[in-house]
Amino acid sequence: MAPPTPGMLYTVGLGPGDPELMTLKAARIIAGAPVIAFFAKRGRVGHARSIVEGRINPSAEELRLEYPFTTEIAVRDPRYAIELGAFYEIAAATLATRLDAGQDVALLCEGDPYFYGSSLAVLDRLGGRYPSEVVPGVTGMSGCWTRADTPMVRGDDILTVLPGTLEEVHLVERLSTSDAAVIMKVGRNFAKIQMALRRTGRLDQAVYVERGTMDGERVGPFAQVDGQTVPYFSLVLVPGRKRAR
Amino acid sequence: MAPPTPGMLYTVGLGPGDPELMTLKAARIIAGAPVIAFFAKRGRVGHARSIVEGRINPSAEELRLEYPFTTEIAVRDPRYAIELGAFYEIAAATLATRLDAGQDVALLCEGDPYFYGSSLAVLDRLGGRYPSEVVPGVTGMSGCWTRADTPMVRGDDILTVLPGTLEEVHLVERLSTSDAAVIMKVGRNFAKIQMALRRTGRLDQAVYVERGTMDGERVGPFAQVDGQTVPYFSLVLVPGRKRAR
Repeated sequence: MAPPTPGMLYTVGLGPGDPELMTLKAARIIAGAPVIAFFAKRGRVGHARSIVEGRINPSAEELRLEYPFTTEIAVRDPRYAIELGAFYEIAAATLATRLDAGQDVALLCEGDPYFYGSSLAVLDRLGGRYPSEVVPGVTGMSGCWTRADTPMVRGDDILTVLPGTLEEVHLVERLSTSDAAVIMKVGRNFAKIQMALRRTGRLDQAVYVERGTMDGERVGPFAQVDGQTVPYFSLVLVPGRKRAR
Repeated sequence: MAPPTPGMLYTVGLGPGDPELMTLKAARIIAGAPVIAFFAKRGRVGHARSIVEGRINPSAEELRLEYPFTTEIAVRDPRYAIELGAFYEIAAATLATRLDAGQDVALLCEGDPYFYGSSLAVLDRLGGRYPSEVVPGVTGMSGCWTRADTPMVRGDDILTVLPGTLEEVHLVERLSTSDAAVIMKVGRNFAKIQMALRRTGRLDQAVYVERGTMDGERVGPFAQVDGQTVPYFSLVLVPGRKRAR
């Protein structure tokens, strides 16, 4: 018997967290897919999985791809990259068995897959081998600036998206040459980001957002935030021009 | 008799153009709103209006806000800003009559309202006076990089969003200090953008996208595009790092 036609790999952007902010296309694919794959931390439901609660076909197979560690290996430890690489290889191989059997797979991804997407590491390993379609989503940062009621850019504004992990001198450089900026990965980088905002005169404009569009959302002036309480997945928004024509 | 409670102003992001890429929330609000407002050019259906075709309540009132000119006044002519400002004032006043009468209004907006949104000029004029909610959408650039099958940023990449209207020296500067870049408003700025990409060694990576996710979509290597045929609403994508772990 001839092998079945391979299944389609859908990498589905789910938006910033509020389930109603997924697209009609994402909802359609998730409702129809025979296999739903998603990443999750040990002992957790998985953020992506929680967004699609109640929208999956009850007969679908769920492939829970559980990260191999939580915090016991430091990110800078070379073992971290090695273990994570091995994890993605196994995850890709797991999806491949379903695709080889002719089943379509929906790989869930918070936000927009091609914008810092967590699913890219698996897609890199499978995308060329199977028919594949990516569904864009509302980014986490769009969700955050909307909830903060902060128009970010207008007209000819320049926007820069920066990781808070950059050195202070580079944060200062980028903030000085942008009308608007989004600084991601705040967490332990809080004090450095605060200094860079102060040095560029942007501290009073800056807005802090944590868990935008989700339960436990926190929004307010950055200058009033206690740096001791800031998680990694939070954002700082520095809006551009205040008003259009 | 007491005046009615003012209506709610919803500014609704519709996504990049493909109607299926609007969010569930956008679709719900559009189906329920008694008044639908949208911008349109003279003699055209209106891009935002075409995206929601078939999703509006048939009994809803449609407020078509027609731009006062097409190309007869140059953008740099001071009369352009004056006429456009007057147009937005009238548009805001038109919406205000419905809101004052207690009707909810859905103001349509391509992409994501707080990201270069065409509706910001009206929202600025009304947002403080009425209860208001903004619904984020998939940005045009997300739609474009998805259709171009181009993962844009990973990990600690820096992304810069630039208008093609910048001077060449500034385009070069920004391209040199970013891992990834999106250059908008290509049109007449094509030759300048081409030179800036060449000077920063990014020409071969750059991808051109026109009408991403819509009819008449055009995607391909920037280096192969004929600059004579490029409209204003097109994008150049310069992707960041090629592969995750």
